[in-house]
Amino acid sequence: MAVLSGVSADSFAFSPANALSPANDRELERPTPQTSARLAAWFAAAQPATPHLAVDLHAIAARYRALADALAPAAIHYAVKANPAPAVLTLLAELGARFDVASRGEVELCRGLGISADRLSFGNTIKKRTEVAHAVAAGVSLFAFDSLPELDKLSDLAPGAGVYCRLLTDGAGADWPLSRKFGCTDAMAEDLLIEAHARGFRDLGISFHVGSQQTALAAWDHALDRAAALYDRLAARGVRLALINLGGGFPASYRGPSPDPIGYACAVGAAVDARFGAARPVRLIAEPGRGLVGDAGVIEAEVMLISEKGDGDPRRWVYLDIGKFTGLAETMDEAIKYRIETPHDGGPTGPVILAGPTCDSADVLYEASALELPLALKEGDRIRLLGCGAYTQSYSAVGFNGFAPLACTCL
Amino acid sequence: MAVLSGVSADSFAFSPANALSPANDRELERPTPQTSARLAAWFAAAQPATPHLAVDLHAIAARYRALADALAPAAIHYAVKANPAPAVLTLLAELGARFDVASRGEVELCRGLGISADRLSFGNTIKKRTEVAHAVAAGVSLFAFDSLPELDKLSDLAPGAGVYCRLLTDGAGADWPLSRKFGCTDAMAEDLLIEAHARGFRDLGISFHVGSQQTALAAWDHALDRAAALYDRLAARGVRLALINLGGGFPASYRGPSPDPIGYACAVGAAVDARFGAARPVRLIAEPGRGLVGDAGVIEAEVMLISEKGDGDPRRWVYLDIGKFTGLAETMDEAIKYRIETPHDGGPTGPVILAGPTCDSADVLYEASALELPLALKEGDRIRLLGCGAYTQSYSAVGFNGFAPLACTCL
Repeated sequence: MAVLSGVSADSFAFSPANALSPANDRELERPTPQTSARLAAWFAAAQPATPHLAVDLHAIAARYRALADALAPAAIHYAVKANPAPAVLTLLAELGARFDVASRGEVELCRGLGISADRLSFGNTIKKRTEVAHAVAAGVSLFAFDSLPELDKLSDLAPGAGVYCRLLTDGAGADWPLSRKFGCTDAMAEDLLIEAHARGFRDLGISFHVGSQQTALAAWDHALDRAAALYDRLAARGVRLALINLGGGFPASYRGPSPDPIGYACAVGAAVDARFGAARPVRLIAEPGRGLVGDAGVIEAEVMLISEKGDGDPRRWVYLDIGKFTGLAETMDEAIKYRIETPHDGGPTGPVILAGPTCDSADVLYEASALELPLALKEGDRIRLLGCGAYTQSYSAVGFNGFAPLACTCL
Repeated sequence: MAVLSGVSADSFAFSPANALSPANDRELERPTPQTSARLAAWFAAAQPATPHLAVDLHAIAARYRALADALAPAAIHYAVKANPAPAVLTLLAELGARFDVASRGEVELCRGLGISADRLSFGNTIKKRTEVAHAVAAGVSLFAFDSLPELDKLSDLAPGAGVYCRLLTDGAGADWPLSRKFGCTDAMAEDLLIEAHARGFRDLGISFHVGSQQTALAAWDHALDRAAALYDRLAARGVRLALINLGGGFPASYRGPSPDPIGYACAVGAAVDARFGAARPVRLIAEPGRGLVGDAGVIEAEVMLISEKGDGDPRRWVYLDIGKFTGLAETMDEAIKYRIETPHDGGPTGPVILAGPTCDSADVLYEASALELPLALKEGDRIRLLGCGAYTQSYSAVGFNGFAPLACTCL
């Protein structure tokens, strides 16, 4: 616990001494508080119909290099689900990334872009037999599981493959809710890995997930301690753990204090190294998604209406042309709080309730969380939502209320 | 209040004396508790890849006729957002329905199917100026609003149109959450309608929404009393209210007690008639969506995995190949509880947690609400979710986690 104890997400400061990356890209030293110059110039020139997501590939490339350095020797398996845009995948493939896929659809997407199957890990613990068979035929040889029935599937369809067992974690400290949907207890994982060893699987591993948008570094301490203890218990039973999959959880920059992403990753890397260096040699994988692409995306949207209800609530209702069902699904329960830029920033502000354009009453973005926007904001203004590179476009509904899915440009 | 007082949703019994419809379709007398024979035969013959939504157009036609009779003289404006499948819209158009649209996209959809613009009402109180202009050019002449800024838009772009002001309602008793997103107070609506009158709008109206999946009939009493009072207050100020839009809220049949849909509609019709008959003559509109098409849809899905976590929870985890992001968005906060059919119904059951196939922890369908499924349920079984005709396909994500949007067949 010594490595990270006392380091809170809020107080975490970037320390050049920790930086394995050259970090000469100053943007990486602090969460990006505003639209990058590249994206701003593109929006100004293109004036796309709103809502529109623009993704800065240069920012992703810089973040990839810095994260890969910070987390080395862990291999980066980009979580494709975070943003499956072909331009993003192609860029990361060129940079040497590997890919964590969640479904047959994502296997096909990667393979269709020429990414070789040996760079894919199938990270979903829930797979159809037909999906496993398809992945094996495509050449995928590393699979997640968290139960005996899933191991049975893999025994039948992917004998001898690499397998890693996901541990149940509680996600405390993460902004996006982590349910008990994935993983099993440490004791069950231990028995499953003994069984997997007996069945001839190779590269036995474990994985965990500290929770998406995990701003509390201490969460890593706890998970890594469990992983190390499991390594030792398995060793005592004659089974060598060969792989630790650190999962994702690396945060992007939203409203409120956010840790510096690379300093954060360096601290995680050091915490891993302290437990899995020479003492417990393992192959390491990390699966950043949000932490790799989240900060690179900006959505431009239009203010459709600003009104009040006559009900004595002093807050203005501000309605945008993007909402919960057209790209901002992560505002569910106001979990993810996007930073917002307006043409009137710097002027006096007042409280608002922010809502989307559909006729669905649930399509309210922020009501409980105190949001202030400039008093000068008016109908027709274009505003920007920052940190929208992950979990936006692919979440948007096919056509709910007649609204098109979120348009996206990668540049 | 006399009309509905003492009638609870749970105890409401179908009374032939109230039935304006011939009701010789026995299926309409009670919520459909199982897949219709037509859909069962189709699934058996087609064996579609799962998940797949099948919609029974015969059931929609029967429900339309019965609802139109029960609510007469109110005109049925089908809420397109509930299920915008072209086959559904074409069928309803042939049966004489009108349509409530939420966006430019839905105007274009209806017009593209040959539905004339005079059958459309633009029910979204949040519209872009470009959307209003497009709708007016297409021939739409009836618009919702709930604020002065929106009335300003309509003044500029749709002068002399029919307009109705939406009242703020609290949705108590409804299963799907109703926020304060839409509507204004009665006092504000009164002033806005006086203003609309002064500006030369015609067919002045009010609308309200008792809440989607509103099983408590008493909610109608309250809203209708408010509407009648507003009618009188406006009359005293020299403005005649010409239109009452009853909105939707008519329930479909999910788990737990559901009112008989036609008996329910008859009771609503009688409650409306008691207030807006000869005493307060108005044109009436109703906007059923879920209540018209919900019961007509069945999703067939596959059990991908049944497992446990080793954490002492006696509930099995059952993972389906459909989830919150591929069609079952209304399981958000477990609001809508679909009935489930399995091949093992009738056998002994045990508690389960039901979840979807994505790597998203939030993709859990039912955990807090007690759900029991047969102990004999196994991986690979095809199960059916009933009452899925509304708010499913159009909600599904474009490709989250690499899963395709929900496929749909109307027959």
